[in-house]
Amino acid sequence: MPDTDHTISYEDSKLYEFTPDLEPAITVESGDSLTVETADSLEGAIQDDSDVLEAVPEEVNAATGPIAVDGATPGDVLRVEIEEIRIAEDAGRVVTIDGFGLLDGHDNVESPRSKMTPVDDGTLAFADLEVPLAPVIGTIGVATAEDGYSTLVPHDHGGNLDTTDVTAGNAVYFPVFQEGAMLAMGDCKAAMADGEMCGTGSEIATEINVTLEVVSDPATSLERPLIETSDAWKPLASAETLEAACELVNQDAIALLAAEHDFDDTEAYMFSSLVGGLEISQVVDPLVTVRNAIPKAYLSSPF
Amino acid sequence: MPDTDHTISYEDSKLYEFTPDLEPAITVESGDSLTVETADSLEGAIQDDSDVLEAVPEEVNAATGPIAVDGATPGDVLRVEIEEIRIAEDAGRVVTIDGFGLLDGHDNVESPRSKMTPVDDGTLAFADLEVPLAPVIGTIGVATAEDGYSTLVPHDHGGNLDTTDVTAGNAVYFPVFQEGAMLAMGDCKAAMADGEMCGTGSEIATEINVTLEVVSDPATSLERPLIETSDAWKPLASAETLEAACELVNQDAIALLAAEHDFDDTEAYMFSSLVGGLEISQVVDPLVTVRNAIPKAYLSSPF
Repeated sequence: MPDTDHTISYEDSKLYEFTPDLEPAITVESGDSLTVETADSLEGAIQDDSDVLEAVPEEVNAATGPIAVDGATPGDVLRVEIEEIRIAEDAGRVVTIDGFGLLDGHDNVESPRSKMTPVDDGTLAFADLEVPLAPVIGTIGVATAEDGYSTLVPHDHGGNLDTTDVTAGNAVYFPVFQEGAMLAMGDCKAAMADGEMCGTGSEIATEINVTLEVVSDPATSLERPLIETSDAWKPLASAETLEAACELVNQDAIALLAAEHDFDDTEAYMFSSLVGGLEISQVVDPLVTVRNAIPKAYLSSPF
Repeated sequence: MPDTDHTISYEDSKLYEFTPDLEPAITVESGDSLTVETADSLEGAIQDDSDVLEAVPEEVNAATGPIAVDGATPGDVLRVEIEEIRIAEDAGRVVTIDGFGLLDGHDNVESPRSKMTPVDDGTLAFADLEVPLAPVIGTIGVATAEDGYSTLVPHDHGGNLDTTDVTAGNAVYFPVFQEGAMLAMGDCKAAMADGEMCGTGSEIATEINVTLEVVSDPATSLERPLIETSDAWKPLASAETLEAACELVNQDAIALLAAEHDFDDTEAYMFSSLVGGLEISQVVDPLVTVRNAIPKAYLSSPF
């Protein structure tokens, strides 16, 4: 029995689009913990190397939720502390799909192709290689401000961020755009490289333990997700190009540094060019995602 | 007195363009160690916050060299082991310059602006913040195959790579395009963020200890630079866009993984999507630079 206040399962409630008007599957209090059960991003379609996907499914990255948090109000921030991501099946799968992936269309790489990655005793197997499990939540987000975004797309509400730092031990902060925030998550990977180059990690079903907290009247208003790791704060941004995402996330970092140190924006920009720096989350989704690491030595909690 | 076999100083020999037909300032044997003295990238033009640069100088990033390595022949690989980078002046400088930098042209950041960053006892000071010294060689490369590239530009010969991993304890491998290889380096920073967003790190003069080794008839032929850190191999690529650089460096990683594990390219591509991953070197030079980290657990020396 999970030692959390609530459990929400993929079978009972899932979504494929983050919109402004989501209806809650469950309502919890700020401070509550939950066990969130998630399917693999392809919902079991690939169980063998011979199962392949001719195209990206219309519905993909099912996100378990939405979870309403009582009292979360537009302008607030939702803190999602990720305590544990447990692997819930005996194999993940890596796939290539036509029209998807960094090297899609290059002569030397083939799509569609699938490869099962069996999981055992803390590692996954890829051919005869063993890779330590390093589970990541690929898709996590809240109800949007205005437009709707499919769970294949990352944007200011989160969504398909495919970011290795969205992992156990870290916290992710989201802007609250709608009453209750309406959190949902899924699309986990047993392991994933920064970039997610072939278009997937090792896609796998999981059980996630999270604790949710509403930050009311935050000292810093968020426009986009922000990650807290053990040693850094990392604004995240998604855009059409890596260059555009880098600009957004650097502007976010500058705003945080300027507020903390009473720098003007140019000083903060100069300082951002000395410590931490830009990191690639993923280069394969309809919008790409980048983060800007600011070491905690230079930034306290912005909230 | 430096405990290396040779010393080469910036005053005696420097270059501003990597070309195919460089004449050696010094010739050394494979296995020799050198002390390389470098100027700051702006060659002393900024000594005070009130000194500013209206434009990127026509000659910038002076690279001390060229150093010929006896016996280095086109098709070989030159291994540059970086043993130590000593700071050689009492302050670095961070600058913004009109027309340069990730946020150039954005209303909230000002150019030109300069800020001195005094160095003392293992740290640099930025306003009242202390940043641990983490010296980086910004520009390092060899004679080119065909075209000439100014020391502001990174390309397959190296050049202005502005990569934090080009630091003490790591080794950088270059393709040898011309007899003697003709190594040169400069443009060091006392510290730099991944991305080098404002266009510079803390630009500073240094003394570098390196040991050079020619890898004759390498098992892997290099097209571009490759970095060896304590725990990873990292192909580097520079291109017009981050996306294009990501494609190049992922192809390089795939080739290395395929050769090591007898994978076909698609399997190697899938595996590259599970471990290590894409990293941003710099987003500000005329070509941008990316690397793809492959943990040593999955790749032995390609040479």
